[in-house]
Amino acid sequence: MNFSNIGQQSYPMCQDVSMRLAELSSRSGVSAPTIKHYLRVGVLPPGEQQSATWATYDESHLRRLALIRALVDVAGLPLEDVRRVLAAVDDERLTQHQALGSAQWALSPSVDTDPSSDSLARVDALLTRHGWQVHPDSPHRRALAAALDTVDRLDLPADDAVLDRYADALGALAPAEVDRIRGDADRTRAMEHVVVGTLLYEPVLTTLRRMAHEAASASRT
Amino acid sequence: MNFSNIGQQSYPMCQDVSMRLAELSSRSGVSAPTIKHYLRVGVLPPGEQQSATWATYDESHLRRLALIRALVDVAGLPLEDVRRVLAAVDDERLTQHQALGSAQWALSPSVDTDPSSDSLARVDALLTRHGWQVHPDSPHRRALAAALDTVDRLDLPADDAVLDRYADALGALAPAEVDRIRGDADRTRAMEHVVVGTLLYEPVLTTLRRMAHEAASASRT
Repeated sequence: MNFSNIGQQSYPMCQDVSMRLAELSSRSGVSAPTIKHYLRVGVLPPGEQQSATWATYDESHLRRLALIRALVDVAGLPLEDVRRVLAAVDDERLTQHQALGSAQWALSPSVDTDPSSDSLARVDALLTRHGWQVHPDSPHRRALAAALDTVDRLDLPADDAVLDRYADALGALAPAEVDRIRGDADRTRAMEHVVVGTLLYEPVLTTLRRMAHEAASASRT
Repeated sequence: MNFSNIGQQSYPMCQDVSMRLAELSSRSGVSAPTIKHYLRVGVLPPGEQQSATWATYDESHLRRLALIRALVDVAGLPLEDVRRVLAAVDDERLTQHQALGSAQWALSPSVDTDPSSDSLARVDALLTRHGWQVHPDSPHRRALAAALDTVDRLDLPADDAVLDRYADALGALAPAEVDRIRGDADRTRAMEHVVVGTLLYEPVLTTLRRMAHEAASASRT
């Protein structure tokens, strides 16, 4: 995975300077043909048409490009999934909670085969124990059950005590994270935050865990 | 991602029944040509040769096949990386701590471009604050710095307070997880547990976090 080729420059926010495609390309680090492709398939909104042959773009296009590159390069999503996620981001009819959920659901890997009923029951029991309201159709239920099936098969089952400790820790951190996202008055920014906060924080979290394991192993030696 | 096609049957441990390739294939759910390929490239140790034309396999081959399929299907590793991870697992010269570290390092995605010096300094400061001993050459340092660069660029920076809360939670859970792995007297099993515990628990953790977010968002509505 390559975490780096995303928006090669940082850019000041809330500064509405319009620019041509060439500048959008140089500031974003995304090639002009790729930008044109994104415009064509509709993941990047059109610029402001100045004449039949040229349009101008603004900071929102730069931010959207950085988000698309993150979804493609970091999250490894195919462009069709990027489109699905951004459609939820952009759908004005959804309430913020619905849109947050749709974007997050769209980010979840689909589970091809049915997880075992044992694991599904364990997931439901966990949700009940922690008082978590998770929609019956949420893909996270199936994803978690499938992940439990995998570790079970490999003879290192996740016992409920371990799951509960993780759930306690993550449940304690979640409200502040969600409030931080919902606190953003700009709906598009808030939606972008869901994507960043869900997918792109996961490497932060999993790498921290690997470091914690390395440190714990070192301290035992 | 497909979490499911891994070892279609569970199998009793410590029961040393030898079997032919056809049975190994049917019990593992891995096709005979694929098993032969694994034998050829050396990720699966050879069976016990019974004559010039056939060999027998045992439960350790079944477990190794389940592990290979998990690394390929769930973790998405190319076979060359699988070989690298298993080489660390199998290298008898390494101490358990070294081998745990090598296997875990081998699992870490390589970071192509240098992370920013700011982010590297933040990672070092975090390690100091938490008293975590992490090797200067550990790929986790670069991986975390690169992940921080990514979220910074996308305008949802991970502030140190958030990182510290995650580090506290994960640091508190790590010793028990590591002890569980190190407590296994069978070295190969212990090494397999690193792989499972590192890579295959990560979907458990990240899915739990997504659920926690969904529940937190629901409770705010």
